[in-house]
Amino acid sequence: MDKNDMILISVDDHIIEPPDMFKNHLPAKYAADAPRLVHLDDGADVWKFRDTVIPNVALNAVAGRPKEEYGLEPDGLDEIRPGCYDVDERIKDMNAGGILASLNFPSFPGFAGRLFATEDQDFSLALVRAYNDWHVDEWCGAYPGRFIPMALPVIWDAELCAAEVRRNAEKGVHALTFTENPAALGYPSFHDPFWNPLWKALVDTDTVLCVHIGSSGRLSIPAVDSPPDVMITLQPLNIVQAAADLLWSRPVKDYPDLKIALSEGGTGWIPYFLERVDRTFEMHSTWTLQDFGGKKPSDIFREHFLTCFISDPVGVRLRHDIGVDNISWEMDYPHSDSMWPDAPEVLHDLLTRENVPDDEIDKITHLNSMRWYSFDPFQHVPKEKATVGALRAASAGHDVSIKARSHKHTAAEDKLAAFSAQIKAATAHTAS
Amino acid sequence: MDKNDMILISVDDHIIEPPDMFKNHLPAKYAADAPRLVHLDDGADVWKFRDTVIPNVALNAVAGRPKEEYGLEPDGLDEIRPGCYDVDERIKDMNAGGILASLNFPSFPGFAGRLFATEDQDFSLALVRAYNDWHVDEWCGAYPGRFIPMALPVIWDAELCAAEVRRNAEKGVHALTFTENPAALGYPSFHDPFWNPLWKALVDTDTVLCVHIGSSGRLSIPAVDSPPDVMITLQPLNIVQAAADLLWSRPVKDYPDLKIALSEGGTGWIPYFLERVDRTFEMHSTWTLQDFGGKKPSDIFREHFLTCFISDPVGVRLRHDIGVDNISWEMDYPHSDSMWPDAPEVLHDLLTRENVPDDEIDKITHLNSMRWYSFDPFQHVPKEKATVGALRAASAGHDVSIKARSHKHTAAEDKLAAFSAQIKAATAHTAS
Repeated sequence: MDKNDMILISVDDHIIEPPDMFKNHLPAKYAADAPRLVHLDDGADVWKFRDTVIPNVALNAVAGRPKEEYGLEPDGLDEIRPGCYDVDERIKDMNAGGILASLNFPSFPGFAGRLFATEDQDFSLALVRAYNDWHVDEWCGAYPGRFIPMALPVIWDAELCAAEVRRNAEKGVHALTFTENPAALGYPSFHDPFWNPLWKALVDTDTVLCVHIGSSGRLSIPAVDSPPDVMITLQPLNIVQAAADLLWSRPVKDYPDLKIALSEGGTGWIPYFLERVDRTFEMHSTWTLQDFGGKKPSDIFREHFLTCFISDPVGVRLRHDIGVDNISWEMDYPHSDSMWPDAPEVLHDLLTRENVPDDEIDKITHLNSMRWYSFDPFQHVPKEKATVGALRAASAGHDVSIKARSHKHTAAEDKLAAFSAQIKAATAHTAS
Repeated sequence: MDKNDMILISVDDHIIEPPDMFKNHLPAKYAADAPRLVHLDDGADVWKFRDTVIPNVALNAVAGRPKEEYGLEPDGLDEIRPGCYDVDERIKDMNAGGILASLNFPSFPGFAGRLFATEDQDFSLALVRAYNDWHVDEWCGAYPGRFIPMALPVIWDAELCAAEVRRNAEKGVHALTFTENPAALGYPSFHDPFWNPLWKALVDTDTVLCVHIGSSGRLSIPAVDSPPDVMITLQPLNIVQAAADLLWSRPVKDYPDLKIALSEGGTGWIPYFLERVDRTFEMHSTWTLQDFGGKKPSDIFREHFLTCFISDPVGVRLRHDIGVDNISWEMDYPHSDSMWPDAPEVLHDLLTRENVPDDEIDKITHLNSMRWYSFDPFQHVPKEKATVGALRAASAGHDVSIKARSHKHTAAEDKLAAFSAQIKAATAHTAS
């Protein structure tokens, strides 16, 4: 397939929320208490909500930035691409990257919206709903066919969460961002009947449970003084814990239509994982009493899980061991793992190198994600205008560079020190 | 290659320590205080040391047992194969399994011998030395050429640990069992200069640092109520954390000859892992300041790490992405992941299915582990008597079955309840 003929849907990108996002959607009585974006003297913008300050970690918005300027120091909105937070600019960046459509995860509230869980449940629910209405109606609504809408959960209450899933489903939303491990956040685990109302709402509305890497709130690092490379290396690999926890769980047995996406989870580890779960079943099910009705765990995985990758040679080579119907593609804009704006080139080189036939390319690049997320962009964008080539032609002249940082340049040594301080602060309350 | 012509060295098996192991090696003044094996009324044998009771978890000694009898309840020595704890019987079992030689990890003291770390450092050191003398002189010494000797570390003191490495090296020992994460055990991490004397002793004596899965003392389970299958699935996958932590560490840079074995770590995850570390380096080294002198992290991995597998189709298929010189084989006797006594059949089927040529079979089955552990069994056992076929011919008539459990049969529901209780007890002090 010619690179320009690919149709790309990315199932994992990120929004850096804009300051005015609560304006139109939060009841007036809560307006003064809503999280707000604050501009600091050093040029950084941070979200403040009650006692919590959430910096916009620069690695999360590096699209267009030279590697030499990577780091963890907070950025200002004026230092990142406007496509991070402005939907009109996002569409231009998507066009320049040849991307037809995109599923956008939240940033400052956390993947499961846990920031909004306060002692005032009415206020908390209002925040979740406001976020969802802004995301679905304003952000996704501005460009029909260009975004797969996704709701934030009501993470502290399964009944309210189910209701929010149903409310959003009526607006055409079929994705829920969630945590890869509610137990790690202090809520009942996936194995607890607590969540039954949620599972039922998800299958009733054909909504996908999206568990993004890093959404457990647990830092998976071996030691406080492990170099940052260790954490970066391990980030996508830790999703294997969520995959195992969900695959062996009761919900996938009780709700045969339950759909789960391992967001930003990569694919190269899955063939080994599937061997391991089948062998575990073969050796131990006599005493663990696992029963999949005559099926193997690997069958169950393929019935329930959608995987995705950015650029993953091993996963593409072993795609038939994973299941070609279970693999989707993602761009991860504007994070540092993203290949934007050259994502189509990187992907096409890989698919060509691995001799992936056209029908499998179509499944991986868009058909699987369309089916999984009940999403049909071609209702709004004709196919001939949806290709990499057509989208890029429409965006000719769009500048894909980034402004140099306006605040003081940080030396690598200082970036490392900042990383170390952040890890120590994050682990201080859990240190054994 | 014919199955009977394979020469098998297993780099990961386990000893269930016999009750008289301290008899000949501990100074008399400590004899009364040594750990002792106690026979309980219910038929189980447990090790007792001060306030600690360590049951012989039955899953750790199931060789020969039908799967229906698997479980976590403690066993008595009279319920497990004598080959678990009696070296003469072990050799017979090795012969029946076609195994030339074996590296044996400890059981009740923990992989890093942490049980022996008391407030009385002289006593603790005496225990470590006694264990090592028993293991090296009695167990391995009884059958030259049949065991790769391995020492327990002095986990609480790097200088003493270095001295113990040197003392054992003089007796021909080139393996040290260690923890995959000293920080998780409360000691300085791999990144701390604390361990420098140990690194130096290891490279001076060409001794391999063996980090076995599960040796961090951390339970890697998503939730307390995750089914046991989750933990069983994840066990080999968690070694990826140690691999990342060591690969990005200073010791592999400062000690170019440092050799590390990822014991029972499997291989199928490694091609994906190597892609990930190279990409991490490519994208982030400008600010993380990683520098491997012009090499890539995957090069460093192949210089420093030996991997192993029991039966791992993905790893064998992708052996050239891992490095054929970096893969060894293991049997895991007498644990539940072991294929004994049919390990040669399982391995040979896999190697045949994946069309592995003879020279690569030899590397994987014995040449890599001989080189890595400075071990030459052929000084003692002529090659023609070292093959699967020759060893089995010599053991004809050896009974490979197991006695039925002598204590009350445990229903699966009760095994699950026991598992749940164990997990709750193990996590009680770390629950957040």
